[in-house]
Amino acid sequence: MTKEQSFRIDDLGRRGYRIYQDPSRFCFGVDATFLAWFSKVKEGERVLDLCSGTGIVPILMDARNACGDYTGIEILPGMADMANESARLNGISDRVRFLQGDLRRTETLVKKGSFDVVTVNPPYMPAGTGLVNPDDEKAIARHEVLCTLDDVIRASSTALKSKGRLYMVHRPARLPGILKLMKEYRLSPSRLAFVHSYEDKEASLLLIAAIKGGKSLLKVEPPIVIYKEPHVYTEQVKRIYQE
Amino acid sequence: MTKEQSFRIDDLGRRGYRIYQDPSRFCFGVDATFLAWFSKVKEGERVLDLCSGTGIVPILMDARNACGDYTGIEILPGMADMANESARLNGISDRVRFLQGDLRRTETLVKKGSFDVVTVNPPYMPAGTGLVNPDDEKAIARHEVLCTLDDVIRASSTALKSKGRLYMVHRPARLPGILKLMKEYRLSPSRLAFVHSYEDKEASLLLIAAIKGGKSLLKVEPPIVIYKEPHVYTEQVKRIYQE
Repeated sequence: MTKEQSFRIDDLGRRGYRIYQDPSRFCFGVDATFLAWFSKVKEGERVLDLCSGTGIVPILMDARNACGDYTGIEILPGMADMANESARLNGISDRVRFLQGDLRRTETLVKKGSFDVVTVNPPYMPAGTGLVNPDDEKAIARHEVLCTLDDVIRASSTALKSKGRLYMVHRPARLPGILKLMKEYRLSPSRLAFVHSYEDKEASLLLIAAIKGGKSLLKVEPPIVIYKEPHVYTEQVKRIYQE
Repeated sequence: MTKEQSFRIDDLGRRGYRIYQDPSRFCFGVDATFLAWFSKVKEGERVLDLCSGTGIVPILMDARNACGDYTGIEILPGMADMANESARLNGISDRVRFLQGDLRRTETLVKKGSFDVVTVNPPYMPAGTGLVNPDDEKAIARHEVLCTLDDVIRASSTALKSKGRLYMVHRPARLPGILKLMKEYRLSPSRLAFVHSYEDKEASLLLIAAIKGGKSLLKVEPPIVIYKEPHVYTEQVKRIYQE
């Protein structure tokens, strides 16, 4: 990493894994933790992570499963560098690497139809909604400035093998658009789960899995409830964090 | 009702309301109870119920709200008769009535664009899946023999005023198709809730609301969990039943 970057090293609480994060930039949240838990990878499978940011999703998934081979795509050079530093820090660069590049040109970065799994924690907010500064890295992570939902789902479909699986985390309000685009890019939704901060609150996140070219029956999984009272996790979420 | 019909009278446990049901035919289930709870009606609003069956949804909604004016459409003459008998039994025929007719020709039965609210508990299963006898009345209630999901959503859109609300109960697996058809018929999904038999089980039902011609942001409401242990309702569901 260049000297201009300031960063901290955070412990992931799992097999000693750590990650570089720059507090002035976008840092990972619970979304990445839930996505890594929701995404299933089998021994030897090739995984592509889009919108990698700090690299948290592949790093957590490797910590969790110790199987699979991970490639991440991240558009911001500084972030991609930091994610590769994190892979080195954990001694997993042989199986977890990050490419700097634009997912709108996924086919120029990786081989089409060559991945078993795609994971993605994309920007949640449409460009132009509450956006302050389009050059700001936090805005890029949160808003669809450099990629839209359409770009993300198209790139996923491009990278996946036939019957490959996409796992995504997003906001519940985007569900109709997600399902529409999945249909357009021949991804058949198979699993859907909602995350609620409390059992009596609206969902704040959704997790969705889809199969490329499949014809699956969508199942809505048990709800995920984070807190049983303020600052106290439910047993379910403690298990998710420990699993 | 004709003498050939056998039926029983069931108490609805709400303000003394009762309903005729024929045990050899389709009898109402928890779906109707959740739909009546999920559907919001204001004083003086006109409500159209499709696939009325025994008439349970309008009758429960009237028992619950004591406001609104309800018209039901039911294709089977014997069922429509029995539903009207139930309205008379409860002394609410002035505001709850059932028409025998085919919702595929809704515009010949009721005035287009004249309803504030549409409610529907349609057949859940596509025609041809596990169907034994297409003349069987239980099959008609459960399978899309006489109307498809497309027919139901098109009829709802036809009957609703601009900004009118549709409330529907269905199976979670049909969600992608429901959202696709809603978009096609200019219904904007606004509320979605899932019913789980236990907190750690997949959803068995979905409840969805949509606004005609609106542009709403979909909210996923808190999960509804029926049982805390076998035969013991959760406090949440006791409240739903009592509200």
